[in-house]
Amino acid sequence: MGVATAEFDFEIPTGFRWAGTAVGIAKPGKLDLGIMSADSPCSAAGLFTRNSFRAAPVLVSIETIARTNGRVGGVVVNSGCANAATGEEGLRNARAMAVAASIAAQSRMGAREEFLVCQTGVIGVQIPAHKVLPGIEQAAGRLAATRDAFLDFARAIMTTDTREKIAWSSFESGGRTARILACAKGSGMMHPRMATMLSFTITDVAIEPDLLQACFARVINKSINCVTIDGDTSTNDSALCLANGASGVEIRRGSEALALFEQALLRVMQSIARQLARDGEGATKLIEVQVRGAQSEGAARTVALAVANSCLVKTAIYGRDANWGRIVCAVGNSGCPVEPARVTVRLGPLTLFRLGAPLPLDEDAALKVLSEEFVPIEIDLGDGDALATVWTCDLTEKYIEINGSYRT
Amino acid sequence: MGVATAEFDFEIPTGFRWAGTAVGIAKPGKLDLGIMSADSPCSAAGLFTRNSFRAAPVLVSIETIARTNGRVGGVVVNSGCANAATGEEGLRNARAMAVAASIAAQSRMGAREEFLVCQTGVIGVQIPAHKVLPGIEQAAGRLAATRDAFLDFARAIMTTDTREKIAWSSFESGGRTARILACAKGSGMMHPRMATMLSFTITDVAIEPDLLQACFARVINKSINCVTIDGDTSTNDSALCLANGASGVEIRRGSEALALFEQALLRVMQSIARQLARDGEGATKLIEVQVRGAQSEGAARTVALAVANSCLVKTAIYGRDANWGRIVCAVGNSGCPVEPARVTVRLGPLTLFRLGAPLPLDEDAALKVLSEEFVPIEIDLGDGDALATVWTCDLTEKYIEINGSYRT
Repeated sequence: MGVATAEFDFEIPTGFRWAGTAVGIAKPGKLDLGIMSADSPCSAAGLFTRNSFRAAPVLVSIETIARTNGRVGGVVVNSGCANAATGEEGLRNARAMAVAASIAAQSRMGAREEFLVCQTGVIGVQIPAHKVLPGIEQAAGRLAATRDAFLDFARAIMTTDTREKIAWSSFESGGRTARILACAKGSGMMHPRMATMLSFTITDVAIEPDLLQACFARVINKSINCVTIDGDTSTNDSALCLANGASGVEIRRGSEALALFEQALLRVMQSIARQLARDGEGATKLIEVQVRGAQSEGAARTVALAVANSCLVKTAIYGRDANWGRIVCAVGNSGCPVEPARVTVRLGPLTLFRLGAPLPLDEDAALKVLSEEFVPIEIDLGDGDALATVWTCDLTEKYIEINGSYRT
Repeated sequence: MGVATAEFDFEIPTGFRWAGTAVGIAKPGKLDLGIMSADSPCSAAGLFTRNSFRAAPVLVSIETIARTNGRVGGVVVNSGCANAATGEEGLRNARAMAVAASIAAQSRMGAREEFLVCQTGVIGVQIPAHKVLPGIEQAAGRLAATRDAFLDFARAIMTTDTREKIAWSSFESGGRTARILACAKGSGMMHPRMATMLSFTITDVAIEPDLLQACFARVINKSINCVTIDGDTSTNDSALCLANGASGVEIRRGSEALALFEQALLRVMQSIARQLARDGEGATKLIEVQVRGAQSEGAARTVALAVANSCLVKTAIYGRDANWGRIVCAVGNSGCPVEPARVTVRLGPLTLFRLGAPLPLDEDAALKVLSEEFVPIEIDLGDGDALATVWTCDLTEKYIEINGSYRT
């Protein structure tokens, strides 16, 4: 397992090809259109935003997965325009992109599997189809099974992201090696149920669509759905997983291989989750909030999210200020019943608040913890055995600067 | 009715005295301790934070209102220390402050009504009782029934507030004039259920405590509970209303005078609500979010709060960017079922999104609306007759600056 470094030393699963190109949707010259195409039909799993204003590509991809019983050939994606809140015209454009990508990418292989479509960027603006449709044709001509092609794809989906989010893993089963590779975008407008986030995970295991969907949903709930940047759930969030079977590793219900696959998938997606949080708009730090001693995992998660979403906690950590009162305040606001006298709060190795009362604060030691790029907060509710972990980032002037002038 | 101006031309209700003094709790020289004392026993109504970590003064004031059946003599308040998450020691200190203020203020009048206590400031720090108790004695010696004394009190409760929040009203009943006067503090950590907020409303009507409590609760639900700055509910929020009967205007259940009183009280508290939102930490604008066409007032309020709490909406308005897609996105995130094809969004006089589809945007006209200090947003859900209004402010670099270094 690994996090992408400058060297990008990952291995790609067999049987997939990628391309990224610049068609000028938002900024001239920026890669903004990507295609991922499989050489053989894939099982597809998808998890989508629960925002009531689901964007056109989300509606189209959901339709497509249902109509094909989870068998697709690839994905087309653009950044710079979310095609959300765009009415009937938006739906027609999203369908046209999926069809165009399927024809352009698959006809070269004599196949004709349907494509999924994802879009990200400004809400409420129609996609310039006169730029995108020729761009799809052009990108399809360049599809390649190389790391560079995958990186072009990973870069084509970025908006305010400052870096690619890439993670990978592999495992052995029955003497064969199976690989998992994922990339994602997402920086602001992020919150569970999903974050403003697109993620694309590919693997060469062989797995039926319904089993892949169940496994992927469990993994996403413990990874991407544990990231919050600013509490907003976008109209376009989509996490897709495509499995083409090219490794020959078969994943059957109840098998040991399924457990190995799910573990590897969880490592990959938790790495993506941490990368998303760390690259939150304007962020300088990755914050991990772990809540223990809760009556249920749901309660632990609710409390962790209340802390992770608190603007005041996030600005205090940005300012390297051990103002743990704001953490306690956020715990009290979660809506979960909490007994103050049982609560303990730790910042890294320092216990700041124990069983309802403050402890003397070692300011120098706290400043040291808060000066790191990774800041772990632990809250023990003293009320049970369940726990949950959530990732977020600090809130900085840069977030305001980015979002005060995003569209213009 | 009025909003405090530089001239502070309000009239004070009869039978109350105030003082504010600087005892050095947080910053040397800043007014940080206030006393409000009534010349005769008052009916008291109080609404308090629903945070699980209710601060010591909140617990003590709730106890006091219950024990006295809502009859008290006044309030003592400090800024600079919230006395929250401070365990048993904090409770002892809050009780000591209330008792000391009652003795110091009331013994001069031969009375001995109990006092309520409010505190605001940093969480998790013990109050320096050795400074506060002598300060109470000193302040009690200066109590005066003057506008200047009231202004000292209103200033002593401020923390990151940049200005006093003061509102007043009066009405005639049975040939007599009754007055209402309120002041409040609150700038960050503000959200309904209450905001980080202390408010003190006084009136010279005669009213029983239970009737005052019911009336005050209705008014607060349509005023202060409709303000959100940053989605955090503090440990100390308290809204108090004291009525001393000195005007001779009697307010009885079901009377016309009750209706007049409640209308006047609502005007005062809605003015306070707007002043609180406008002075949100780092704010440059007051934003009013009105949701119409909802199935219930609760649904309208939930949607309005989702928009008002969206960091992305608030930064866009700060940047004078008519990025209405973020408004639509926040509507979709509220958790209330919404039918996109029925939704219309207006910014001031401009309709940006009608019945699920975008309209052409007049950028110049939008920039004009967004350049004002007051920005009204209207969302019609097209689904019923109920409506709700919520007030918030924009989110700016200054908010980060203030909260990244509040404690230090």
